[in-house]
Amino acid sequence: MFQKLLIANRGEIAVRIERACAELGIRSVAIYTEPDRFALHVKRADEAYQVGDDPLEGYLDPRRLVDLARETGCDAIHPGYGFLSENADFAHICEQAGIAFVGPSAEVIARMGDKTAARSAMRDAGVPVTPGSEGNLADCAAALEEAGRIGYPVMLKATSGGGGRGIRRCDSPDQLEQAWERVVSEATKAFGSADVFLEKCVVDPHHIEVQILADKHGSVIHLFERDCSIQRRNQKLIEIAPSPQLTPEQRAYVGELGVRAAKAVGYENAGTVEFLVKGNEIYFMEMNTRVQVEHTITEAITGVDIVREQLRIASGHKLSFRQEDIHYHGFAIQFRINAEDPKNDFLPSFGRITRYYAPGGPGVRTDTAIYTGYQIPPYFDSLCLKLVVWGLSWEETLDRGIRALNDMRLQGVKTTAPYYEEILRHADFRRGHFDTGFVPAHPELLQYSVKRNPEEAALVIAAAIAAHAGL
Amino acid sequence: MFQKLLIANRGEIAVRIERACAELGIRSVAIYTEPDRFALHVKRADEAYQVGDDPLEGYLDPRRLVDLARETGCDAIHPGYGFLSENADFAHICEQAGIAFVGPSAEVIARMGDKTAARSAMRDAGVPVTPGSEGNLADCAAALEEAGRIGYPVMLKATSGGGGRGIRRCDSPDQLEQAWERVVSEATKAFGSADVFLEKCVVDPHHIEVQILADKHGSVIHLFERDCSIQRRNQKLIEIAPSPQLTPEQRAYVGELGVRAAKAVGYENAGTVEFLVKGNEIYFMEMNTRVQVEHTITEAITGVDIVREQLRIASGHKLSFRQEDIHYHGFAIQFRINAEDPKNDFLPSFGRITRYYAPGGPGVRTDTAIYTGYQIPPYFDSLCLKLVVWGLSWEETLDRGIRALNDMRLQGVKTTAPYYEEILRHADFRRGHFDTGFVPAHPELLQYSVKRNPEEAALVIAAAIAAHAGL
Repeated sequence: MFQKLLIANRGEIAVRIERACAELGIRSVAIYTEPDRFALHVKRADEAYQVGDDPLEGYLDPRRLVDLARETGCDAIHPGYGFLSENADFAHICEQAGIAFVGPSAEVIARMGDKTAARSAMRDAGVPVTPGSEGNLADCAAALEEAGRIGYPVMLKATSGGGGRGIRRCDSPDQLEQAWERVVSEATKAFGSADVFLEKCVVDPHHIEVQILADKHGSVIHLFERDCSIQRRNQKLIEIAPSPQLTPEQRAYVGELGVRAAKAVGYENAGTVEFLVKGNEIYFMEMNTRVQVEHTITEAITGVDIVREQLRIASGHKLSFRQEDIHYHGFAIQFRINAEDPKNDFLPSFGRITRYYAPGGPGVRTDTAIYTGYQIPPYFDSLCLKLVVWGLSWEETLDRGIRALNDMRLQGVKTTAPYYEEILRHADFRRGHFDTGFVPAHPELLQYSVKRNPEEAALVIAAAIAAHAGL
Repeated sequence: MFQKLLIANRGEIAVRIERACAELGIRSVAIYTEPDRFALHVKRADEAYQVGDDPLEGYLDPRRLVDLARETGCDAIHPGYGFLSENADFAHICEQAGIAFVGPSAEVIARMGDKTAARSAMRDAGVPVTPGSEGNLADCAAALEEAGRIGYPVMLKATSGGGGRGIRRCDSPDQLEQAWERVVSEATKAFGSADVFLEKCVVDPHHIEVQILADKHGSVIHLFERDCSIQRRNQKLIEIAPSPQLTPEQRAYVGELGVRAAKAVGYENAGTVEFLVKGNEIYFMEMNTRVQVEHTITEAITGVDIVREQLRIASGHKLSFRQEDIHYHGFAIQFRINAEDPKNDFLPSFGRITRYYAPGGPGVRTDTAIYTGYQIPPYFDSLCLKLVVWGLSWEETLDRGIRALNDMRLQGVKTTAPYYEEILRHADFRRGHFDTGFVPAHPELLQYSVKRNPEEAALVIAAAIAAHAGL
């Protein structure tokens, strides 16, 4: 096993990886930029190094991070998610420096990061892909021609895109013409490549993704699927495992497709194969060659510690499990508690956490880097906390979700928590009937009244009395 | 299901029950005495009522609590553990008032609370009991005669005792003579009955207890066992489920014995049958007719929410499960983090919690009523926090336990947490070899050096620099 690991990330995922290191006896090395000097991932690491004053650059400089890993005697780097996690160059520089990259090879990252290459690899492996352009599009005229062939609506997508960015739905040739320049320019700016391609738009599908584990010895298994259909503008909000919407046959089939996809590209380490599901149609969408934000719910239903397995795999161990050892129990839901104001178009609500008290009791897990007094820096994502609930039945899990959302105390910033409670109370959601159209179809769920917990209510009343008394 | 429930308890178990109420849509009513007016169980309840200025009396007054339940429109009372939970009068007054008591009938509580009656009921049902006196002892002379027959060492026990009190080991007639007056007087003071009896002392057994669920319709199931052998002076410190020390045959056998014991007395609701296990000898010790502090670890390995089941059973529902639906997965360990100083003979360390930050991440559960700024009142037990860890394997669970103990921040009082870390690092414990003799046999585990976490260490260094600079 590794002796010392550099974590090329921040926030809750850095803390998550530090926990896995602590359990495996690996010394953890954190990095930080100036706004993160009081961050939890820095305080909880065995060692921590500042990698620059610019808030972002230090987290995005492959060469510098590999140098730091070497200088500090690290034998491995875990990239987390986001930042450099799907940057093939980073994995390549690690490989050259003789430092283990906790993820697949640079070659596989590059191949799956190129969406048109990934699609063609999947087609070759017999994994169904959505109808779309065979490769990248030469120009807007080619796009219009392809769209005519496929039929509208279509999705115009950046070939190197991901995380819901560089993607636009077009319902007509007019919209496609308008979108062309924007997506190309977005792709160039965000991903450094102007390549774009077209896919048939499956309207309001289920977003189903399969968790894969693959070792260096040829074993590939899946840990069942997650349902990430509760999204807003392609950003996942609530994730569920297993999907309450799949039949056992569909579950077995997507699991098998996930394994086939991973095997086809010689995948190694943890990864996620994303599918669009609509009725009996199941299409490969993309593969995320890293740990996902929502890996937690798969851990909850299978008991497998995915980050632990990542580290074991990267250090050359065989998988701890065969496919037949993996079972799932109950249901898990993850809430991404973001510092955003749902009532104000989900505007980020950065600021100081004046109070944070973790929810607890049965079937509740939290992953966070916030604490009372923590100032959320405006340079990064708005994720405050991942709240995961687990229950034996779907109904118990829903009830526990509402309870845990209310159990938590998170004050000082607005969050998405009250909005999630509305979703959990919605009859369709409770019946397990929802797809990626759920959030846009239910703007009325934003009309909740902001509840105060009893302590806050008492303060408000006291303040009112004081004001009335002229105090 | 009940509409409104009075919780006749305080601290973490009151919070635990409030959480179950919230999930089941039951309105929760808390009670408190003066020192608890800022307690978490008060803040988190839907309603809360002060039941007196005396710290303890209000929690111990059956008539007053039943009156309060009636006045506030409650249809049920949950007694938690300790306090009135095994008080047959309390259950009886509830029954008479038409308020559901969340537990077995007054008659069963009385029967199992009388240890000699319980022993004879078990003998009749074919559940093995330790050799001992047939009934209560008339006087010390009778005790000496019985002890001669049974053979030393013997345990002199209060017939109405429990929770590790009113119990003394005697290795010789001299010791028995000395112990007689003390145990009789302790029994009278603590339990209001001078009755005592004798049992053969099984030296350093394993303490194994079986979790039972029984509904009003005749169904009785077990949720496997817990190993509570890590005790100090009959007080449990660390509990484990399932026991790493039982063979599958022993596991099946104690589970079956637990069900037989519960059926024999017409048991209803959740209960625990405690056994002494030494080699192939398994003896009934006592039955606890209430939820246990350590019910959490059974929830972790089976997924069953025991408090939820208690409420369902008491309101007349059938059990949610048949025996064959119950499976266990992995291992769970509970640490009772007490505000005590292990290095100073476990002296209570009451005071203000200057900082509390819950541990998180995979396989970690907390149940607590403390918070930053909370002043631990000196009138109640010293339990600060129940920390539960779960892992797929015993080794993973041990590693996770050490990680979670270090992950937690609990400052302002001394706690048992660092001592538990030493236990988890001990080779015998890691091999799963321990019995009730483990704690007394290993005083060297108290010789740990108090670690500081990085944040504290930085403050100490800063203070030293300031002092040196004459600041």
